[in-house]
Amino acid sequence: MTANKPPVLTLSAGPVQSYPNVLQAMARPIGYDFDPSFQAFYEETALECGRAMRQDEPALILQAEPAVAIEAAAASLISADDVVLNLASGVYGKGFGYWSARYHKSMVEIEVPFNDAISPAAVEAALRDHPEISVVSVVHHDTPSGTLNPIVDIGRLVADHGALLIVDAVSSFGGMDIHPADCHADIFITGPGKCLGGTPGITFVAVSQAAWEHMEDNSAAPRASALSYLDWRNSWSRSAPFPFTPSTAEVCGLAEAVDHYFREGAEEVWRRHALTARACREGLKASGATLWAAREEIASPTTTAIAVPDGLKDTDIFDVARRDYGVVFSLGRGATAGKLMRIGHMGPTAEPAYALIAVAAMAGAMRKLGFPADVGKGIEAALAVIDNQE
Amino acid sequence: MTANKPPVLTLSAGPVQSYPNVLQAMARPIGYDFDPSFQAFYEETALECGRAMRQDEPALILQAEPAVAIEAAAASLISADDVVLNLASGVYGKGFGYWSARYHKSMVEIEVPFNDAISPAAVEAALRDHPEISVVSVVHHDTPSGTLNPIVDIGRLVADHGALLIVDAVSSFGGMDIHPADCHADIFITGPGKCLGGTPGITFVAVSQAAWEHMEDNSAAPRASALSYLDWRNSWSRSAPFPFTPSTAEVCGLAEAVDHYFREGAEEVWRRHALTARACREGLKASGATLWAAREEIASPTTTAIAVPDGLKDTDIFDVARRDYGVVFSLGRGATAGKLMRIGHMGPTAEPAYALIAVAAMAGAMRKLGFPADVGKGIEAALAVIDNQE
Amino acid sequence: MTANKPPVLTLSAGPVQSYPNVLQAMARPIGYDFDPSFQAFYEETALECGRAMRQDEPALILQAEPAVAIEAAAASLISADDVVLNLASGVYGKGFGYWSARYHKSMVEIEVPFNDAISPAAVEAALRDHPEISVVSVVHHDTPSGTLNPIVDIGRLVADHGALLIVDAVSSFGGMDIHPADCHADIFITGPGKCLGGTPGITFVAVSQAAWEHMEDNSAAPRASALSYLDWRNSWSRSAPFPFTPSTAEVCGLAEAVDHYFREGAEEVWRRHALTARACREGLKASGATLWAAREEIASPTTTAIAVPDGLKDTDIFDVARRDYGVVFSLGRGATAGKLMRIGHMGPTAEPAYALIAVAAMAGAMRKLGFPADVGKGIEAALAVIDNQE
Amino acid sequence: MTANKPPVLTLSAGPVQSYPNVLQAMARPIGYDFDPSFQAFYEETALECGRAMRQDEPALILQAEPAVAIEAAAASLISADDVVLNLASGVYGKGFGYWSARYHKSMVEIEVPFNDAISPAAVEAALRDHPEISVVSVVHHDTPSGTLNPIVDIGRLVADHGALLIVDAVSSFGGMDIHPADCHADIFITGPGKCLGGTPGITFVAVSQAAWEHMEDNSAAPRASALSYLDWRNSWSRSAPFPFTPSTAEVCGLAEAVDHYFREGAEEVWRRHALTARACREGLKASGATLWAAREEIASPTTTAIAVPDGLKDTDIFDVARRDYGVVFSLGRGATAGKLMRIGHMGPTAEPAYALIAVAAMAGAMRKLGFPADVGKGIEAALAVIDNQE
Repeated sequence: MTANKPPVLTLSAGPVQSYPNVLQAMARPIGYDFDPSFQAFYEETALECGRAMRQDEPALILQAEPAVAIEAAAASLISADDVVLNLASGVYGKGFGYWSARYHKSMVEIEVPFNDAISPAAVEAALRDHPEISVVSVVHHDTPSGTLNPIVDIGRLVADHGALLIVDAVSSFGGMDIHPADCHADIFITGPGKCLGGTPGITFVAVSQAAWEHMEDNSAAPRASALSYLDWRNSWSRSAPFPFTPSTAEVCGLAEAVDHYFREGAEEVWRRHALTARACREGLKASGATLWAAREEIASPTTTAIAVPDGLKDTDIFDVARRDYGVVFSLGRGATAGKLMRIGHMGPTAEPAYALIAVAAMAGAMRKLGFPADVGKGIEAALAVIDNQE
Repeated sequence: MTANKPPVLTLSAGPVQSYPNVLQAMARPIGYDFDPSFQAFYEETALECGRAMRQDEPALILQAEPAVAIEAAAASLISADDVVLNLASGVYGKGFGYWSARYHKSMVEIEVPFNDAISPAAVEAALRDHPEISVVSVVHHDTPSGTLNPIVDIGRLVADHGALLIVDAVSSFGGMDIHPADCHADIFITGPGKCLGGTPGITFVAVSQAAWEHMEDNSAAPRASALSYLDWRNSWSRSAPFPFTPSTAEVCGLAEAVDHYFREGAEEVWRRHALTARACREGLKASGATLWAAREEIASPTTTAIAVPDGLKDTDIFDVARRDYGVVFSLGRGATAGKLMRIGHMGPTAEPAYALIAVAAMAGAMRKLGFPADVGKGIEAALAVIDNQE
Repeated sequence: MTANKPPVLTLSAGPVQSYPNVLQAMARPIGYDFDPSFQAFYEETALECGRAMRQDEPALILQAEPAVAIEAAAASLISADDVVLNLASGVYGKGFGYWSARYHKSMVEIEVPFNDAISPAAVEAALRDHPEISVVSVVHHDTPSGTLNPIVDIGRLVADHGALLIVDAVSSFGGMDIHPADCHADIFITGPGKCLGGTPGITFVAVSQAAWEHMEDNSAAPRASALSYLDWRNSWSRSAPFPFTPSTAEVCGLAEAVDHYFREGAEEVWRRHALTARACREGLKASGATLWAAREEIASPTTTAIAVPDGLKDTDIFDVARRDYGVVFSLGRGATAGKLMRIGHMGPTAEPAYALIAVAAMAGAMRKLGFPADVGKGIEAALAVIDNQE
Repeated sequence: MTANKPPVLTLSAGPVQSYPNVLQAMARPIGYDFDPSFQAFYEETALECGRAMRQDEPALILQAEPAVAIEAAAASLISADDVVLNLASGVYGKGFGYWSARYHKSMVEIEVPFNDAISPAAVEAALRDHPEISVVSVVHHDTPSGTLNPIVDIGRLVADHGALLIVDAVSSFGGMDIHPADCHADIFITGPGKCLGGTPGITFVAVSQAAWEHMEDNSAAPRASALSYLDWRNSWSRSAPFPFTPSTAEVCGLAEAVDHYFREGAEEVWRRHALTARACREGLKASGATLWAAREEIASPTTTAIAVPDGLKDTDIFDVARRDYGVVFSLGRGATAGKLMRIGHMGPTAEPAYALIAVAAMAGAMRKLGFPADVGKGIEAALAVIDNQE
């Protein structure tokens, strides 16, 4: 397979494959954003996104990919009076600290190796040691590591402390059982482009009343800006104008992705994410590969990361899997680049069949490069998981 | 026609109807942004956008709607040492001054009534009176007014002065004969969502070498930010990583919109924009309506604005045209809201047939509301223009 | 507009423009026809088509355009013992007689000029004079003439006589209030490609129990053939195999077209067909054109035919309307070719806005060719109809 | 996976998965069939189909699935004077004899077991014994068996004999190196819905001059009929009218499928079909399964058929593979139903990655049902083929 031919199967950790019906929704005729039919559709979409997050309020929809929405959260929420506790167990967690630094008074940071997770005990200690902490930020699934943080426990501690909690749930929401209220999040950021099988150019957010008040009190919170949460606060309502033109196609795709999630049923979607991840992990371990996560219980149900074997290069594995099998995996990113390979199983690729192909292509590619992988054994181990699903 | 049913024909000034092939391109399978096939496609798209603007360099592609790209231009280019000349002949021109104010040392502003155009003589005088002016900003087509500024003449003056010129050509490029070099623009911002018949969620920009240098010298220029030009500078190259995830669907739509422009031929596209605008203007004048533009020669070939007749309400005209004829027009925006109605004829709607329907529906709706429009006469005048195209 | 560029607006009498959602449905992933999910979908589609025709039984779905389905009806139903009464008021009605002749014992034919309609009195007389008549065939809307036959009255006479009735309702069903039971049809043939705003490659049919029995008794009825009704009789059921591969895309489009009809509401769809037709007729008459139909009450609500003015050529009108206005009309067909021009207003084009453009483009083109049309007056007359809708 | 949820991967032998760009082409706006832009497009499509078959003449395009086109070939070509040699090595070959019987004077048939192929020697003998044979019919790839006939050798014998040759190449053309001239075919029937990755509702045919003459001399050849070749003979030309309405969507899909074939390159397409088939066969054999084909050299590169193991039921294998792995295979058909399972690898699924998943899912499902398949060994054998592609 040549480089210019698109791959046969994309098993990346994002952008991920979208459901066909979501893709089709992107092609709907463009509506004038002030037309009543578009405004009614937008309002309904915001409400549906809220319902997907199990809240009564409409979601805040932002016209940008989630990374922008996280930058905007820092800009909008964190004031010059705020002391931030930043929890860094991966590239995105660490990165939030840099955004925070533009706005906060000071920051406390807990950092763990990027194959590990933040411990609630450490959070508890930090909050005790720094009663002035007013904002806490945590990434649920730090995608470049494929690892989860225990945000339910962390959220309870933050709530008890009385600080505001920002949760990056971009690549976990929709793929497992997590919602804003479960973790006491004040700003819970996610999007359709990962586990919902949508496209990457739009974000939706749950914002608590306390967070809205904090932003309104923040005189430096951006307005008339791409970084403003306040601009878009009420734009879900058909009676409020849009601050700037929404990406109509992305709104259509978002609506369809959330509909898809409801039609299939959240529990069923989570089930197949978890099953596919388990089959990937068991298959790859049996083939001889090593999981990246320090402990299997922190491995994400939406992305499987394995360590690049000694002596191999990540980009070589990528190239061989693509060239010989037509399968594309994700590499690491930032600090994890070169150290791991990632298999995304989100949305439409969270299906056991893709675990089989992922194991065969990943182990096969590593073997071609000299690593003694046992592909057959890997497939049998993955099948054992799949065959024993109840 | 009820409010929830989409209109039959959308003749708004943006978001505008897209070409069917562009809509279909939005539905292409999502590619991993680091896949070689996507990166090659992205590079080719940046080069094509550059070629459409008649330059050899690839365009800067930004993953946001043009208003964000203009905010980002102010943030990236304007340093605390810059003195800005802001030219305000409409809502968007005026608005740029507010963005500029966040970054500049000081600002000179020339403001004319929002149905008029900036005069080159005034620009010349301002530059003479303020030799310290280092950046000039102008909107080519201020869409909420439907009027053009003489940017070729203005650009020559700015170039002679030695300042950097920011041009907002969002709703003129592709609909008439204007390119960055024609007006000596240093930052020339446009997108597919207007005259190219694409979607609104992406922007492309021509940036001169001088502008890049100015941004690099600007220590406050945003990095790792949605407002950064520098982050995306080289991301067109297949060897440079993306700073954050691009909207893959919007990139596909952009590529197809630019292809469409080349396939049809730029001159032919401009011809039908101009013809449709002329038919609209003659038709509406003959029906009894009054053009918004102070002089017809500053009326845009891509949008026709007419004054709301005394005693009528803009939203009533909108509602009647939609309910009775299924046709949607644009209202004014900001300072022009309530004062004018706009007919967009951009991309696929820049066709004479739509001028006929626009005249019938606009004049018809005004008549239903009590204005003594002569619709038949309007149609005959529009037809006279169309029938006499060579 | 050059010949190779697609027209701006297609106002043909078929294939007609499809709704965007129907077109998107055509692009759904292809399913294996024996997959349970496809079979369940097919069964549901057949039931929905039945419901649209207001019957409890699923419709017979045929994998071909309606003309083939009519040929197949003749082949399947008409045996060597049958005496057929063929009612010919247009090209399609006349044509059925030729198909019938391949199979029947003998035929009685009532033929009227192709701008007129069959009178029930003539049918009554024919049935009285020929008690041996066992099958009657009638076209409801003979599209090449744009005229309707009084099939409710005719159906009652045929039912009283005890003959089987074949109704071609291809271009009337869905655009007006007509269903198999209303006209006592035994074979009622229609498809999504006209008033339902679907595509032309598929047909659905209501078949009475008596007609099925007649076909089963017909030893010459085709089996294992594209002309067989019996092959497909039970293929709606998920437990029956398909005799040959269905056009999966056309099935998807059909399902969406019928859904669209239900979502909008049949009465509302009929209302806008009738309104658009009335506006077309009044507008064209006021412009100076002559309706083709001998009497306005037999003019179809789904197609408006006007006589080609003396001295003009139909293909010239077609060419000028296309070249100057980008609007495509239908020509006549067979015996009506050269004599009339047709405006289709079916499905998405059955909207008053299209009547305005049709009047302007048709009258405008005729005037350019020398006919003294008054376009302004035509538009005013069309607007008067539209403005006075309740 | 429940029955109503579409499968994750469809590896059927038809309808097969289509390329995304082909599916999108199906959703293009509907053109009036007599519009010059549609007629030019149709003509170009017919020429492209001809070029794909390596002939200068445009292809005959028929508006139906290939089975109908084969029935129509029998109806159009075979006259009451013709003596037919029918070659039956599978369900479709055998079936042609029944169609032939409606029209021919007499028939000679060579039938072999449906896991075997026709031997040229037997054809040679039959032609020698029956000098009166005027028409020969052969299926290249009898899909319900997954086996090939040696049509190049057979074609040479038929040409030497002076008879006309009908070749059903529906599921081989485009997946391997075969063209009308290679086998001296007079009627060579194929379609986009198999190896070209298109949809099943349309057919294209190469017809020799001799065959056209034979049809014209055949007074019983259908006209004004779905079974007529002569009706459509010249409809490729923009100056010839269509006998009935073409399926515009299917024409668009066909054009895109053929374009795809040219863009990728025929040799490359054949290469990946052959590679995928080889990986499937080696993998399944190594897992313990038995190929259906009597000799591996007659196994098709586009479909792999394996025998249903003793004691297992084909529908159980289908159900388990679908339910547990989300993978859909084809069953047998007619005389092969119950005896074999089929894996289609045509068009987009002719990729090695799908061989891996096919082996895992097929062998895995059989093992779950009690057959002692060694899935790991199967995967290793398939990988060995893929890894050793040059």
